[in-house]
Amino acid sequence: MSYQETEAFYSDLYDELYPILRSITGPGLRQSYDIFGRYLPLERLSIPSGTVLFDWQVPQEWHCDEAYLLGPDGERVADMHRLNLEVVNYSEPVDITLSLEELQSHLYSLPELPEAVPYVTSYYKKRWGFCVSQSRRDQLKPGQYRAVIKSRFVDGHLDLAQTVLEGQSDQEVLLSSYLCHPSMANNELSGPLVLLGLYHRIKQWPNRRYTYRFMLHPETIGSLGVLHLLQDHFRQHLVSGLVLNCLGGDPQELVFKHSRNDNGLLDKLLYHLSERDYGHSNIPFSPLSGSDERQYNAPGFQFPVCCVSRSFHTGYKEYHTSLDNKDYMGIKPLLDSIDKLEKIFLAFEQVAKFENKFPFGEPNLGKRGLYPTLSFFSKERTSQLDELNHIKMLLNYSDTKHDTIDIANLQGKCVTDMQSAISKLEEQKLLEMI
Amino acid sequence: MSYQETEAFYSDLYDELYPILRSITGPGLRQSYDIFGRYLPLERLSIPSGTVLFDWQVPQEWHCDEAYLLGPDGERVADMHRLNLEVVNYSEPVDITLSLEELQSHLYSLPELPEAVPYVTSYYKKRWGFCVSQSRRDQLKPGQYRAVIKSRFVDGHLDLAQTVLEGQSDQEVLLSSYLCHPSMANNELSGPLVLLGLYHRIKQWPNRRYTYRFMLHPETIGSLGVLHLLQDHFRQHLVSGLVLNCLGGDPQELVFKHSRNDNGLLDKLLYHLSERDYGHSNIPFSPLSGSDERQYNAPGFQFPVCCVSRSFHTGYKEYHTSLDNKDYMGIKPLLDSIDKLEKIFLAFEQVAKFENKFPFGEPNLGKRGLYPTLSFFSKERTSQLDELNHIKMLLNYSDTKHDTIDIANLQGKCVTDMQSAISKLEEQKLLEMI
Amino acid sequence: MSYQETEAFYSDLYDELYPILRSITGPGLRQSYDIFGRYLPLERLSIPSGTVLFDWQVPQEWHCDEAYLLGPDGERVADMHRLNLEVVNYSEPVDITLSLEELQSHLYSLPELPEAVPYVTSYYKKRWGFCVSQSRRDQLKPGQYRAVIKSRFVDGHLDLAQTVLEGQSDQEVLLSSYLCHPSMANNELSGPLVLLGLYHRIKQWPNRRYTYRFMLHPETIGSLGVLHLLQDHFRQHLVSGLVLNCLGGDPQELVFKHSRNDNGLLDKLLYHLSERDYGHSNIPFSPLSGSDERQYNAPGFQFPVCCVSRSFHTGYKEYHTSLDNKDYMGIKPLLDSIDKLEKIFLAFEQVAKFENKFPFGEPNLGKRGLYPTLSFFSKERTSQLDELNHIKMLLNYSDTKHDTIDIANLQGKCVTDMQSAISKLEEQKLLEMI
Repeated sequence: MSYQETEAFYSDLYDELYPILRSITGPGLRQSYDIFGRYLPLERLSIPSGTVLFDWQVPQEWHCDEAYLLGPDGERVADMHRLNLEVVNYSEPVDITLSLEELQSHLYSLPELPEAVPYVTSYYKKRWGFCVSQSRRDQLKPGQYRAVIKSRFVDGHLDLAQTVLEGQSDQEVLLSSYLCHPSMANNELSGPLVLLGLYHRIKQWPNRRYTYRFMLHPETIGSLGVLHLLQDHFRQHLVSGLVLNCLGGDPQELVFKHSRNDNGLLDKLLYHLSERDYGHSNIPFSPLSGSDERQYNAPGFQFPVCCVSRSFHTGYKEYHTSLDNKDYMGIKPLLDSIDKLEKIFLAFEQVAKFENKFPFGEPNLGKRGLYPTLSFFSKERTSQLDELNHIKMLLNYSDTKHDTIDIANLQGKCVTDMQSAISKLEEQKLLEMI
Repeated sequence: MSYQETEAFYSDLYDELYPILRSITGPGLRQSYDIFGRYLPLERLSIPSGTVLFDWQVPQEWHCDEAYLLGPDGERVADMHRLNLEVVNYSEPVDITLSLEELQSHLYSLPELPEAVPYVTSYYKKRWGFCVSQSRRDQLKPGQYRAVIKSRFVDGHLDLAQTVLEGQSDQEVLLSSYLCHPSMANNELSGPLVLLGLYHRIKQWPNRRYTYRFMLHPETIGSLGVLHLLQDHFRQHLVSGLVLNCLGGDPQELVFKHSRNDNGLLDKLLYHLSERDYGHSNIPFSPLSGSDERQYNAPGFQFPVCCVSRSFHTGYKEYHTSLDNKDYMGIKPLLDSIDKLEKIFLAFEQVAKFENKFPFGEPNLGKRGLYPTLSFFSKERTSQLDELNHIKMLLNYSDTKHDTIDIANLQGKCVTDMQSAISKLEEQKLLEMI
Repeated sequence: MSYQETEAFYSDLYDELYPILRSITGPGLRQSYDIFGRYLPLERLSIPSGTVLFDWQVPQEWHCDEAYLLGPDGERVADMHRLNLEVVNYSEPVDITLSLEELQSHLYSLPELPEAVPYVTSYYKKRWGFCVSQSRRDQLKPGQYRAVIKSRFVDGHLDLAQTVLEGQSDQEVLLSSYLCHPSMANNELSGPLVLLGLYHRIKQWPNRRYTYRFMLHPETIGSLGVLHLLQDHFRQHLVSGLVLNCLGGDPQELVFKHSRNDNGLLDKLLYHLSERDYGHSNIPFSPLSGSDERQYNAPGFQFPVCCVSRSFHTGYKEYHTSLDNKDYMGIKPLLDSIDKLEKIFLAFEQVAKFENKFPFGEPNLGKRGLYPTLSFFSKERTSQLDELNHIKMLLNYSDTKHDTIDIANLQGKCVTDMQSAISKLEEQKLLEMI
């Protein structure tokens, strides 16, 4: 096992990424891409501030150098250098002295989780604020407080990063995750880390039927940027997509939120495999919660993009707080997620629609060495027919309507059982992928 | 409550209409329209006798001034001035003396209901006859009888009557009932009386999404006349229709006979609401019995017209006899029918297909005041998301394929729950009805 | 009952056909057609050797005059004149002396059925061989054996034979069976014999809605020949087909293997009738086993051709051996198969899609004598409405989408119950078959 496959590798990489102050734009995000760029060849796509993205507009970059809140006795009530969640992300600059009472509307805390610092953002409306634990807030004494935020809004870019592994077909699978969250673990360093692991696995396959595109970007505005640049390409080539989201944490099962129309090849495969011990479950699409899959599945796109998670769809109390840390997430679950996802995409490689190029009657298989030239029904001979049966089924049903999952289902088999028969028929040019 | 909403109003109106000798054409029908015309602005549509209506022809008008049958002792065995059911409707003129034996083939009675005078018609074949109770018939003595019917067949018109309440959309709902039956109550003064009540309710709504057309006409030939005049209009504008039929009588529940293809908006709503305590049940279309819905649902039209009844579809023994009177029908059930139907059409107003005008990704709701501009996940805030959820669902699924019932069903909600969210999205021009 | 309907007739015909050495081409096949040609007017269709049939090629004719295997003591170990299964069908010529050891690879036997001589063919690869029982093989002594096969491969034809019974419509039903098997009974003299019986029954019907085509041919290459000649005709006219296969033997029930897309009129009827005591069961299509239906149902054709059998689909141990003889097959089961199949095709004659020629509203049935001209609801009258109900249902649903099975199902009736109503509506030109 190479170092890049080990728990230690992911643990070290996590530790390097964790403290960076990321946001949906700006230097923290770029620094994070640079770190990932050491391990996969990331191409940067940048969209200028102010660009209209459908109903949205790329905001100015947020640069924040310092942010702290001093108490009446000079103590640091909040300080982004201690924990970058302590400043409201995208806070406008401020330097003001005010009473505790005046301060209250700029403070965010969670009574239900008194020790947690919440994660709060205000990307599209100018505000400033600090996040503190409820227990700290309850102890604040009356007096004068000084709030200092040294931030700037700068014309720059919305930055996306991608790499592509080409396959035999230009039909494409999109794998994406988001990297805009500051110091939190499961949501969301887990997704980019698993995406990196999956890239390495798929790269090592001896061949690939499909092309795989890996994307990192900020959430929401980032996927809108992806769609802005690639919507036409996706309309032609995208067969399925998967958003990687919250892939650490306790529950051992992967949960796939399906695409809106539930009609992608991946959607279909996930149902097929979930009857066969692949260790995942399926839930339907909803626009109410989730992540970037909501953009891909908007009514104007309806791209078959799913979202996979171990813990997000079911919810966890540490979500969007300082308690979502390495202790909560763990590193082992990331490796397990990588293993399970690779296994699913290995099966995905067997999923395709083929056309039988000799559709008028049964082709003469004997002359191609695929069928006995002697007709002799005996017990011994009929017991060797398994692959021949796959061949007959594939030929009869490769009619441009049935895909290999349909054909496997007609036989009560798994699509992966037909791998050898599919290969032989492709070699003999009896089947051609469509 | 205005007088026109009271039981007394409907009772008085019933009493005025009951004794009139109506038929599918002629003066009794016109007189009845005149009476209704006092309470809603009826426009008269008249089609000349002899006009070809598809496979039919408008018959001449039937005018009947007198009809009686004198017994051997001069007693009035039947007399249309006593009860207008006693003459076979559309009887040809006759003045003849004949024996009891010869008379028998011109008499109609019901052995199974010995006290009832049956309702018999012969619109398209010339006949004459009298209807009597079986008990009276059994007592008739041998001897000479005199049959006198002073009727004429006159070139005139087939008369229809309508009024329209315009809505924001020119998509139209047809509400119709038939007024050709002479002195019977449930079948069929109930339908026209409920139609009048529903007109007053819908007229009072502050606004109407749909246009509502109210039609009164004779049965069968009348609806064929409506189709003759309006079939092209209906093909463009009719979203659903409802025939009002037998809306008094015992059973407390409304029963909706659905349209043939069961694919109108009203069909769909009726299923949706019947899981939600609206107090009605649904039965499938059949061409075997029923009323004018059979014409609207003929294979050449296939208009989504349903039929509603409290007692017709299940059958009642007084049907088409003198026992179908005010005692049987009652007035209270009519008011209850009006209440329930209004409630259903209020829900209908929320049923529409919309197009999301910003379908590429999620629209920016924050800038329109429909979404918090601060991202902060706390218990308190997530408990206020009900309307926001309706908004997200309406936006994602308003893709020209899903209507609001589909979207409500996806959430396990009633379509009426989304009324406020629909309004806000229409105001913001995010949704547009199609 | 004429002689041609009797058990004796089929028994005598069987005895005449049994000993002939048939193959997929050649004189034995032609001689067998000649015998059938005495009882039905068979037209011969011949395709020259070497003709390309889709992915196949018509092989040269096989003529075999003698084939025997002499043992060390001069005994006849195998001899095609004793039992024509004893030579591998399509053996190349040979005259050779060889040791028992060398001989073994040219011998075929079945350890699991020690007394049976197996049926072995090698049409498309040149080989020679003999088939013997396992018990005989076990007794073969070491020594020199002489193998003599006097066969020739001759340019000639692939021969097919057909006859057609015309119906009112040029929509066509294909009935086919195969005649290439040498001395075996159930598989496959049963199919051609039942086909002959069915021909005589259908010929005697007073009228036929559909046209029936009866085909005899060799298996696989023969049905490919049929498709080569008739595929365009079938695309225009074929409404359903049925391959007759293994119609003798024990099980009393007919088993229908449905067509691939399960969408032919016969497919639909078979489900409809199997709920109504017609004594058959249904199994889905599969390309894995079966006979010529696999060619008709190939993806390039997808013709709705089923296959019927009493014993084939469930398997029987005597299959493709000398034990598949008259004792196993019986003659009575053939007559029973003919009876049951005729009954099904009599029902098939009532299956059609009609168009209501007066689709705008209900047509005026009174003026055509199909409906009472007097409207009078009484117990007595409503009890006579069965046929009237069929008429109303047929008129309303004959909309080019529903066929008569659909309309029967809507009423919970059998399609044969509507025979009289269908006739009356066709006579009145209210319905027209499409």
